[in-house]
Amino acid sequence: MNPRSPDWDVRVRESFAKQGAMALLGATISELHPGACSIAMPFRADLSQQNGFFHAGMTSAIADSSCGYAAMTLFGERSEVLTVEFKINLIAPADGERLVAEGVVIRSGRTLTICTSTVYAERGPQRIACAIMQATLMRVDAR
Amino acid sequence: MNPRSPDWDVRVRESFAKQGAMALLGATISELHPGACSIAMPFRADLSQQNGFFHAGMTSAIADSSCGYAAMTLFGERSEVLTVEFKINLIAPADGERLVAEGVVIRSGRTLTICTSTVYAERGPQRIACAIMQATLMRVDAR
Amino acid sequence: MNPRSPDWDVRVRESFAKQGAMALLGATISELHPGACSIAMPFRADLSQQNGFFHAGMTSAIADSSCGYAAMTLFGERSEVLTVEFKINLIAPADGERLVAEGVVIRSGRTLTICTSTVYAERGPQRIACAIMQATLMRVDAR
Amino acid sequence: MNPRSPDWDVRVRESFAKQGAMALLGATISELHPGACSIAMPFRADLSQQNGFFHAGMTSAIADSSCGYAAMTLFGERSEVLTVEFKINLIAPADGERLVAEGVVIRSGRTLTICTSTVYAERGPQRIACAIMQATLMRVDAR
Repeated sequence: MNPRSPDWDVRVRESFAKQGAMALLGATISELHPGACSIAMPFRADLSQQNGFFHAGMTSAIADSSCGYAAMTLFGERSEVLTVEFKINLIAPADGERLVAEGVVIRSGRTLTICTSTVYAERGPQRIACAIMQATLMRVDAR
Repeated sequence: MNPRSPDWDVRVRESFAKQGAMALLGATISELHPGACSIAMPFRADLSQQNGFFHAGMTSAIADSSCGYAAMTLFGERSEVLTVEFKINLIAPADGERLVAEGVVIRSGRTLTICTSTVYAERGPQRIACAIMQATLMRVDAR
Repeated sequence: MNPRSPDWDVRVRESFAKQGAMALLGATISELHPGACSIAMPFRADLSQQNGFFHAGMTSAIADSSCGYAAMTLFGERSEVLTVEFKINLIAPADGERLVAEGVVIRSGRTLTICTSTVYAERGPQRIACAIMQATLMRVDAR
Repeated sequence: MNPRSPDWDVRVRESFAKQGAMALLGATISELHPGACSIAMPFRADLSQQNGFFHAGMTSAIADSSCGYAAMTLFGERSEVLTVEFKINLIAPADGERLVAEGVVIRSGRTLTICTSTVYAERGPQRIACAIMQATLMRVDAR
């Protein structure tokens, strides 16, 4: 997939840095390529649900961002990204030292981009898929 | 809808209190009835996305919890709740002084409970719906 | 909700009449108002799954159309409607003499419209909700 | 993935044969392996929407069945399959001589199975992905 903007990498990282929510969660971009973005989040007790696993909402938050920024890598210079909707299945306990959400673009249209993300729970050398997402993102032209 | 446990209220609030994630977001239970749970979250810059609105992931986190605890109000004494999946449409900017996610049970089955949640962005006396969720929850018997 | 086109009713019915799939299923428009469309489908053995209830795919087909045409009632004269995505929960067996999918517009934007639909299984005077849908529709300008 | 029943293949095909809806659509099983099921549907005018492409509801119907039967390949002898919910993104016009929905099991649990399906529109040697689905299926023990 071909980015439309030469500085796609810088623009994505700048937008990510402006997301207070990602800083609050301790989430960072771990991989960034045209059409793909991975976001990692180390475990903390204050990201958990009642059983000590990552909260489904925190899992969704990084999966959503991984889709949004995967989409944005392919946008032109003055475009931003909005989440239209997403759907997530929690397929295994999000139990690990860190979560990594790997978002990829499935279809890049003029207005809408469709992405999927798989979230992995990692512990030492082990990783298991704990969630899968399908998301619709929208390109909006900055004012 | 009829709760199966006399202390449903206490059990829900105890489970909520154990969710580190809800404390991190400053989210609290604002309404709790059999088959219904509302969760409120005041605005903070560290809950935002790149434009200063609430981050879609934070919006989903409280909507997910409002569905989970709405479901749990109807569970028996030794049962806990797991999110199987949810789907959320972000229908307007989550721009306000606080968000309130109102979760309600649509169908309560033996194993699965289906809920919907509407998230409102409030500013002074005004409130507009900014997201709608459909979720599937699972009853799991505590070990 | 206000239609943008004076002949919204005629245009919706003409578009519906062109859907070979709706004729195949024996589905008809049972209610049509600005922002709302209901579609009814009487039971036939060839609409069933392995247990003799309506097939989830047939249930989804009329729910999808009820959302699409609810959206289209609000469009201008040269606009058509496309389904971007939908999500459906099958909450009870679709067991009845007929199904009715009641689609309503939740949010009507410039490009995207968000709808929900509830599908009821009817038998004599009884009706129970058997499915709920959340859908995203797109306005496309006819060539 | 390992089937629990020696005659999984026969039981899946018998269940499929009982679905009046699949016969109505002219849909057939084109591939069947443990954890995977593909369903093909040749184009007919009475499967179309208003522009002459396959109707989103028909596309969903075979995608849903491909997920359900992929799940069922792994079930024991007296178990049947129910669709709990699914979500589908229509990512390109379903324009072709036939559609093929390829369902695969992502996670097989005791009660719930999570599947994805990709639907391809085929024309001669060409095939393009026109829809992606994420679905939750439930194992139910036959009475």
